[in-house]
Amino acid sequence: MPSPRKQIAEITPNLIREVADSGFGMTDVIPLWFGEGDRPTADYIKDAAVRALAENRVFYLPNSGLPDLRDAIREYTRRIYGLALRRERITVTASGMQGIMLVMQALIDPGDEVVVVTPAWPNLAGAARVMGGIVCEVPLSLRNDGWRLDVERVFDTCGEKTRAVCINSPSNPTGWVIDEGAGAALLDFCRRRGIWLICDDVYSRIVYERNRAPFLVCEADDEDRVISINSFSKTWSMTGWRLGWIVAPPELERALAILNEFNIAGPTSFVQHAGVAALNRGEADLPEMLASFHRCRDIAITRLSALPGVSVGWPDGAFYAFFRVEGLSDSLALAKRIVREAGVGLAPGAAFGAGGEGYLRACFATRPETLEKAMHRLEAFFAGINPTSTRQEERV
Amino acid sequence: MPSPRKQIAEITPNLIREVADSGFGMTDVIPLWFGEGDRPTADYIKDAAVRALAENRVFYLPNSGLPDLRDAIREYTRRIYGLALRRERITVTASGMQGIMLVMQALIDPGDEVVVVTPAWPNLAGAARVMGGIVCEVPLSLRNDGWRLDVERVFDTCGEKTRAVCINSPSNPTGWVIDEGAGAALLDFCRRRGIWLICDDVYSRIVYERNRAPFLVCEADDEDRVISINSFSKTWSMTGWRLGWIVAPPELERALAILNEFNIAGPTSFVQHAGVAALNRGEADLPEMLASFHRCRDIAITRLSALPGVSVGWPDGAFYAFFRVEGLSDSLALAKRIVREAGVGLAPGAAFGAGGEGYLRACFATRPETLEKAMHRLEAFFAGINPTSTRQEERV
Repeated sequence: MPSPRKQIAEITPNLIREVADSGFGMTDVIPLWFGEGDRPTADYIKDAAVRALAENRVFYLPNSGLPDLRDAIREYTRRIYGLALRRERITVTASGMQGIMLVMQALIDPGDEVVVVTPAWPNLAGAARVMGGIVCEVPLSLRNDGWRLDVERVFDTCGEKTRAVCINSPSNPTGWVIDEGAGAALLDFCRRRGIWLICDDVYSRIVYERNRAPFLVCEADDEDRVISINSFSKTWSMTGWRLGWIVAPPELERALAILNEFNIAGPTSFVQHAGVAALNRGEADLPEMLASFHRCRDIAITRLSALPGVSVGWPDGAFYAFFRVEGLSDSLALAKRIVREAGVGLAPGAAFGAGGEGYLRACFATRPETLEKAMHRLEAFFAGINPTSTRQEERV
Repeated sequence: MPSPRKQIAEITPNLIREVADSGFGMTDVIPLWFGEGDRPTADYIKDAAVRALAENRVFYLPNSGLPDLRDAIREYTRRIYGLALRRERITVTASGMQGIMLVMQALIDPGDEVVVVTPAWPNLAGAARVMGGIVCEVPLSLRNDGWRLDVERVFDTCGEKTRAVCINSPSNPTGWVIDEGAGAALLDFCRRRGIWLICDDVYSRIVYERNRAPFLVCEADDEDRVISINSFSKTWSMTGWRLGWIVAPPELERALAILNEFNIAGPTSFVQHAGVAALNRGEADLPEMLASFHRCRDIAITRLSALPGVSVGWPDGAFYAFFRVEGLSDSLALAKRIVREAGVGLAPGAAFGAGGEGYLRACFATRPETLEKAMHRLEAFFAGINPTSTRQEERV
């Protein structure tokens, strides 16, 4: 039978998708499984796309992106981070995911080691594996004050074959945000060792009790091997639009343009025009959205942590509650059971690599009333089970 | 200095882009360099996108594509090719280019050989090289009756390490269309040897004196290693939209879905809705567009073949005149000179691999009056040079 190459056949499928598929055809499921809210894109962004279509912005654009969009990204970076970037450092991509894939294609030879801090969104490791990279996981530890990274463990994991360290801060699924000290230590280590530091910054504006997460590119020179990947999906509620960008050393500009050409040419043209509108006008909408997320975080964490056998830390960023269920060792089976029996769609912790098993993830980027309803269902479900029955369920 | 891996640093840049950059800032250039016409997307397709935006089709879709779009592709394939496909065989992709990259990621291990019939659009080979594939070129030969493929040369080029043969028919840049006999022989050979046959079918509807080019998937069973890559860019004038699809054996469905997830998640959601409209209503527009291309083909080939030292065959498909200039050995330098001195943007033959040097490519998918003006400029330019001065120019 025809089959893909071994590297691809052996890649773990998306376990979140497997849970969602198990609920296929059910009409009354509250979907908190994917990394996406229920908030549609703002009208002024949709209007910009409609206007671009009317103006026939339907032809090819330069591989590095629409010049106006690259400039709008520069202006945004200056405004939010106080950082003046040369245009050469910016490549527009068809989503943060596409940005990660282009970076892996640019840097990872087969057999190169890629260190990933976990639990983490599985697609960072997935893109590295497609290119033949060997993924080495460094787990965060959960303490009383939340998730913490021991940078020494990252250093100890880096060997001769390590080509890159990947950080996703704010983290999907844990909500962990790197602190300035750890960021500086990582940057210093990578600089000395000639290792690339790849920062998945897509949640950098989704933070609580501050305006933005630490942005390691700010501390890097043009010559440093530091890359930031960003996306319009979360901050501007544009998941289905597929638009993002990379900030990289100027020396990578040519390689990233060639790789855009060989992957997709570039993102959809009129979507790039809409991206200019998002960056130029979107800041005004952010406080209201973040206030809603903040309220949902309070609801989710307060009510989940009151469930029997459940413990959960307060996320400093992103929009997920990543909660531990006592005695749980098959999060996929439990997530499937919760879909069927409670009508709530959750992501299994096993999807997020080392240290993720035993947990479930709920996306709380939804309307508070929807979230309240989901919490009510989970309370009823957890009231009916105890750790023993949970353990039996694991063998289903 | 930070730099990409060797494999990427050594990839030949896009020579067409280099010519276009050399004309940057010039206001009076007739651009015939890219594979794109000047015809904007039809209103009913743009309207479908606007409607989808109004309906908030701005969220994630399944990795294999919008179910309605997969079904519309099945119906289109049945209608045009008389071929009933299972839905599992269809994966929606963010452009034909993205389809090619996903296929290379699914199949090509580092060191695998990929046989490409040339002169060919360079991105097929480019995607294979990104994955560490070794590209082996089999040149077409130009006879009095046009470009011809000697399938025996393909067979002779395939060795133990050959994983795939790539065919682009109708061909960019030559306009060559594979005949049924050569297609059957290739399929038979690949079947016996367990080699993948990857067909870039994006120009399959842009043909002259017939309704469609031979479609090798029609001759293949579900178990055959035959893949077709298609695109909305050319047939529906949607270059900037980034939408295409793959037809593959059902055994690849899961791998291609995972790879969509790790590359881009999927094409822009409302663009997929517009794709349904294109397939369901676009057939009515095609005759007028093809009649225009036909007229432009006549203008381009008649007038180019009358130039001193120029010879050109009649393309059976696609929308390019690929013409030979006597004595030319540096097509890049000549293309740059023609931009500067004649104000016409052409692609250098060297961009298209083995057998391409000595040629220039003009895209004739433009309004006849624009094309007439470009031909007039080229006539004035070629009247002023002779083979000797052309050869001197090659060393510029």
